[in-house]
Amino acid sequence: MTYCLGILLEDGLVMASDSRTNAGVDQIATVSKLSTFATPGERVITVLSAGNLATTQAVISSLRHAWGNGDPHRDLTLATSLFDATQKIGDCLRDVLAREASFVHPYGDPSASFLVGGQIAGEAPRLFQIYSAGNFMEASERTPFLQIGETKYGKPILDRLLRHDTGLPEAAKLTLLSFDATMRSNLSVGAPIDLLLYARDTLEARRLRSFDEGDPYLAGLRQGYAAGLTSLVAALPTPDM
Amino acid sequence: MTYCLGILLEDGLVMASDSRTNAGVDQIATVSKLSTFATPGERVITVLSAGNLATTQAVISSLRHAWGNGDPHRDLTLATSLFDATQKIGDCLRDVLAREASFVHPYGDPSASFLVGGQIAGEAPRLFQIYSAGNFMEASERTPFLQIGETKYGKPILDRLLRHDTGLPEAAKLTLLSFDATMRSNLSVGAPIDLLLYARDTLEARRLRSFDEGDPYLAGLRQGYAAGLTSLVAALPTPDM
Repeated sequence: MTYCLGILLEDGLVMASDSRTNAGVDQIATVSKLSTFATPGERVITVLSAGNLATTQAVISSLRHAWGNGDPHRDLTLATSLFDATQKIGDCLRDVLAREASFVHPYGDPSASFLVGGQIAGEAPRLFQIYSAGNFMEASERTPFLQIGETKYGKPILDRLLRHDTGLPEAAKLTLLSFDATMRSNLSVGAPIDLLLYARDTLEARRLRSFDEGDPYLAGLRQGYAAGLTSLVAALPTPDM
Repeated sequence: MTYCLGILLEDGLVMASDSRTNAGVDQIATVSKLSTFATPGERVITVLSAGNLATTQAVISSLRHAWGNGDPHRDLTLATSLFDATQKIGDCLRDVLAREASFVHPYGDPSASFLVGGQIAGEAPRLFQIYSAGNFMEASERTPFLQIGETKYGKPILDRLLRHDTGLPEAAKLTLLSFDATMRSNLSVGAPIDLLLYARDTLEARRLRSFDEGDPYLAGLRQGYAAGLTSLVAALPTPDM
């Protein structure tokens, strides 16, 4: 399984993914599910991947191969908006599935989904979710975050605390707490967590950090949250019954 | 959907369920999913139900009808242990599905699952989960809680704070926080929350309370938790990136 989270904020975007891939409990590996395509000063496109690893890697490889090659259907340097870029990625997913799905079906599920977040000069930052069918929907102020993969364990803390006007550093912290909740409750989601902070209008993807299992900040955050939550709940009254 | 939670503690049991039933968003009703069968001083058997409502109601009605009627396959007053009682309930589920499933399948899923918690004099309190197949597994010190239905949103807080030696009132509070997390993140789980506290060796089921949407304790708990969580997370450091 996988957990990927994209957040659309007034100040920019947070894009994050875990790194565990598994086909059964005895075939576990660490892969990157966060891919960045950028021309500094002009466009930043971040893609988070969930689902069949062969499918997602085929899509990402095709996009890397086409970057700057002038192919009107694949080249993300030609995308005139993030909507246009997302449509190209969705079309690429459809092409990969058209080629692979019938061969994969006897063995498993070939489907995949993506979160696409970024900014192209002339637009505000935008965030999209591409479904397995290749169609997609966009985040808005009212729905400031999108998730794919193992989404439920990490949703309550976001529902409670995340808002469209949350600052980037605060949103990064909430993202790591959301991943921590997911990793504690589900073995198939695992570190390192890849986290990209994108500040609106910077048009570069430099604030990227990978948090591994022993990362001191992550360890301190977990410990502080666990201790604080224990005290918080202990201080609340018990029901009279 | 449904959320049911059973907790096995040193001090006894907590059994809780939401009350929403739905077949699509425009056919929503409130039902009780917590049923208690008791002979004070001798046995207390609590059943929490999830899944197809016709199936779960048929099972519960059959068990009520058979209570004290001497039927060796159905009468829970004859169960010699909670294992035995759970087997009778699982068998009853199989009989209902044998009768109904083929008629229901064209329209939807006839399956159901149950949590069975309680105590029969001579044994310690026990807690079981009955799968749709009618087979079942038992909670233990290492797995002190079992969930059925919409289980994921409410699991992180239990994973973090619930232990086998947690007291009954604290566990009741955690149960309500787990339900609150679920109800905030999923519309198909809704109040009132039915909550039973069973203190070990009391052999009676009197500490039963229903928390509706406007319950003052529940409102205070939600508010205190939300405010405390906001302060807690705000006080944690942000990542350096």
